[in-house]
Amino acid sequence: MKDNVYKIIEITGTSATTIEDAVNKALKRAHKTIKGLSWFQVTETRGSIDKGKVQHWQVTLKVGFEIQDS
Amino acid sequence: MKDNVYKIIEITGTSATTIEDAVNKALKRAHKTIKGLSWFQVTETRGSIDKGKVQHWQVTLKVGFEIQDS
Amino acid sequence: MKDNVYKIIEITGTSATTIEDAVNKALKRAHKTIKGLSWFQVTETRGSIDKGKVQHWQVTLKVGFEIQDS
Amino acid sequence: MKDNVYKIIEITGTSATTIEDAVNKALKRAHKTIKGLSWFQVTETRGSIDKGKVQHWQVTLKVGFEIQDS
Amino acid sequence: MKDNVYKIIEITGTSATTIEDAVNKALKRAHKTIKGLSWFQVTETRGSIDKGKVQHWQVTLKVGFEIQDS
Amino acid sequence: MKDNVYKIIEITGTSATTIEDAVNKALKRAHKTIKGLSWFQVTETRGSIDKGKVQHWQVTLKVGFEIQDS
Amino acid sequence: MKDNVYKIIEITGTSATTIEDAVNKALKRAHKTIKGLSWFQVTETRGSIDKGKVQHWQVTLKVGFEIQDS
Amino acid sequence: MKDNVYKIIEITGTSATTIEDAVNKALKRAHKTIKGLSWFQVTETRGSIDKGKVQHWQVTLKVGFEIQDS
Amino acid sequence: MKDNVYKIIEITGTSATTIEDAVNKALKRAHKTIKGLSWFQVTETRGSIDKGKVQHWQVTLKVGFEIQDS
Amino acid sequence: MKDNVYKIIEITGTSATTIEDAVNKALKRAHKTIKGLSWFQVTETRGSIDKGKVQHWQVTLKVGFEIQDS
Amino acid sequence: MKDNVYKIIEITGTSATTIEDAVNKALKRAHKTIKGLSWFQVTETRGSIDKGKVQHWQVTLKVGFEIQDS
Amino acid sequence: MKDNVYKIIEITGTSATTIEDAVNKALKRAHKTIKGLSWFQVTETRGSIDKGKVQHWQVTLKVGFEIQDS
Repeated sequence: MKDNVYKIIEITGTSATTIEDAVNKALKRAHKTIKGLSWFQVTETRGSIDKGKVQHWQVTLKVGFEIQDS
Repeated sequence: MKDNVYKIIEITGTSATTIEDAVNKALKRAHKTIKGLSWFQVTETRGSIDKGKVQHWQVTLKVGFEIQDS
Repeated sequence: MKDNVYKIIEITGTSATTIEDAVNKALKRAHKTIKGLSWFQVTETRGSIDKGKVQHWQVTLKVGFEIQDS
Repeated sequence: MKDNVYKIIEITGTSATTIEDAVNKALKRAHKTIKGLSWFQVTETRGSIDKGKVQHWQVTLKVGFEIQDS
Repeated sequence: MKDNVYKIIEITGTSATTIEDAVNKALKRAHKTIKGLSWFQVTETRGSIDKGKVQHWQVTLKVGFEIQDS
Repeated sequence: MKDNVYKIIEITGTSATTIEDAVNKALKRAHKTIKGLSWFQVTETRGSIDKGKVQHWQVTLKVGFEIQDS
Repeated sequence: MKDNVYKIIEITGTSATTIEDAVNKALKRAHKTIKGLSWFQVTETRGSIDKGKVQHWQVTLKVGFEIQDS
Repeated sequence: MKDNVYKIIEITGTSATTIEDAVNKALKRAHKTIKGLSWFQVTETRGSIDKGKVQHWQVTLKVGFEIQDS
Repeated sequence: MKDNVYKIIEITGTSATTIEDAVNKALKRAHKTIKGLSWFQVTETRGSIDKGKVQHWQVTLKVGFEIQDS
Repeated sequence: MKDNVYKIIEITGTSATTIEDAVNKALKRAHKTIKGLSWFQVTETRGSIDKGKVQHWQVTLKVGFEIQDS
Repeated sequence: MKDNVYKIIEITGTSATTIEDAVNKALKRAHKTIKGLSWFQVTETRGSIDKGKVQHWQVTLKVGFEIQDS
Repeated sequence: MKDNVYKIIEITGTSATTIEDAVNKALKRAHKTIKGLSWFQVTETRGSIDKGKVQHWQVTLKVGFEIQDS
């Protein structure tokens, strides 16, 4: 097993429905430009409010992926 | 754009079903007495357990709203 | 009311579907060997990623229960 | 069991004698205007010093109570 | 010296110019309804950005004041 | 001096009187089943409230002890 | 309103004069290569010292911006 | 009122009896060599255990005092 | 892939030589009684000092392992 | 380049005007007795309030300097 | 001295041997694509375990480098 | 056993080779002027980088020692 190196980026996904959906929306978008996303950690769960209801969940993630050798 | 001032309060919503429902229950209740709730941040997710299942989700939020000029 | 003593353990539940399901899976398993689980607190929400989607939610909990007198 | 909502406030009690007394002084004062104080958590223990002795203990608490339906 | 009790609230001041101005705007507004504001602690310094410049500083404070006996 | 290994557990003691008593109650109970308790660190001080007074102090500790060779 | 995704980067601005200037220098530089910078949060305020005076303020920020669809 | 400068040191007091006593022992010792101790903040509460009882409370404090002009 | 549940324990390894050796000593000891140790995280690095040199490194770890179905 | 050793002290500067001035006042005073102050980090920003305005900014710093060989 | 701006990235290096080796592996890989890496800070030390021994050290770093003017 | 009082100082050791060496260099230097150094805790591990390699490890420690009666 070789000694891999990983990069960790921070992204925020938003969703009108659930925390899980906000996370998946963020991952789906990151996956468009970065291959090999491997793991994530939720670092903040916030949201905007409209008329006493959650309008948008805003979930911030650290996401790790292996740096490929060029 | 004027220099608004916001107040931040801390509340805990509870729900037998989901984290999202606990948050919305807390916001709904706060909305009864405070107009203009603007954003929230989840600061703690706890719960009570009954027979090896979550009985009640207890989700604590900081909630911000603009202080209206009196 | 007597002065109870509680023990707190840390466990991680996993689920392919939701954060709530991961928590309940962890509690269900702990309940097999420990009676009287009383409360929990979520301390970390992570996950593995496959093809730009959450593959498994990994939710870590502190779980408290009363130590029974032997 | 219905889905209660709780409010959390932060107060500082002071006492010339003990940490416990500072907490009780803070709770006694809050109890004058808020019914149904339910739980607290100590968030900071400080104090003033006079001639190399603690002059006043200053103990800050978060205190939770159920929001009653109006 | 009697054993005073203090309340701590959290507010956010905003300003287009400086951090200090945002703090003073928050204190000025709070002073309209609460007498005896005594001390503050900055807990977060954020801001909005417009065209690569700070548009509004958003400075969050905990503010303490003595609870007067009624 | 050999290279010892220690285990750290987390327990919560409760007491109607003082923080110190809650700690000692927790240690006394842990001592029934674990020999060689060596040190502790207080990680949280909470409590329940009844009629504006502390009803029960709830003090959580990490407690370390040497793992004996079997 | 669609479910936007944001990226958060961390940068350090420096200035010989003020904290505000260090923040604006960092944002100005980031703005050269990233359009749509939206918000920031100060995470660290440090500095170098020369002859008992601040030589350079070093202010670290998290900066968020919307990821544009390609 | 002039612009005072304060120094903050960290000390640990120990006591076989109470947390308060450990704090006072630490302050009494520091007072022997430093005049003008002004305030303290408890940063850690630990202890050693003997036969299932607290043997020594070890309470760590940050202590502030005005630096006198020489 | 089934939804595994993991337990996390906290142990402290000690060594007269290196941090790595202290970690390995802790894992070796835990491995005697627990099969399937899977990952660890260092949570604290301390040590005792003798004559101005490190006498013993004391490295505390959280260690995770899958709970086997009984 | 030799392996230098640095000492870190904690001081609080105060100012009626700005955060930057409070930091510089603290550094100026420390510089009277310690040569070679090298870097600082702001660890707390507090203040006293008078009539709804900041009376004194109180900014706490960690300050590092090389320990000279005697 | 001009007012430089720095970018901070987060990477994880892995090694079968030591913490230092994991850090150097991460820096070596980052150096392939980024010139002028200037400083780092270790933010997490984890690892995988195989048969009661560390299999791979996983050390996460924040790494800073000056943003060159284009 | 009498109620000792300890002082805690913060120092940073540097080394071109290992974390352990940086810690020992810091302790060796502190030992020149302070007798009875008793324990330490690593609070930060940083370093400078040269050509994609660690140039100097910079390890910050809190170090405790008993205050001798004068």
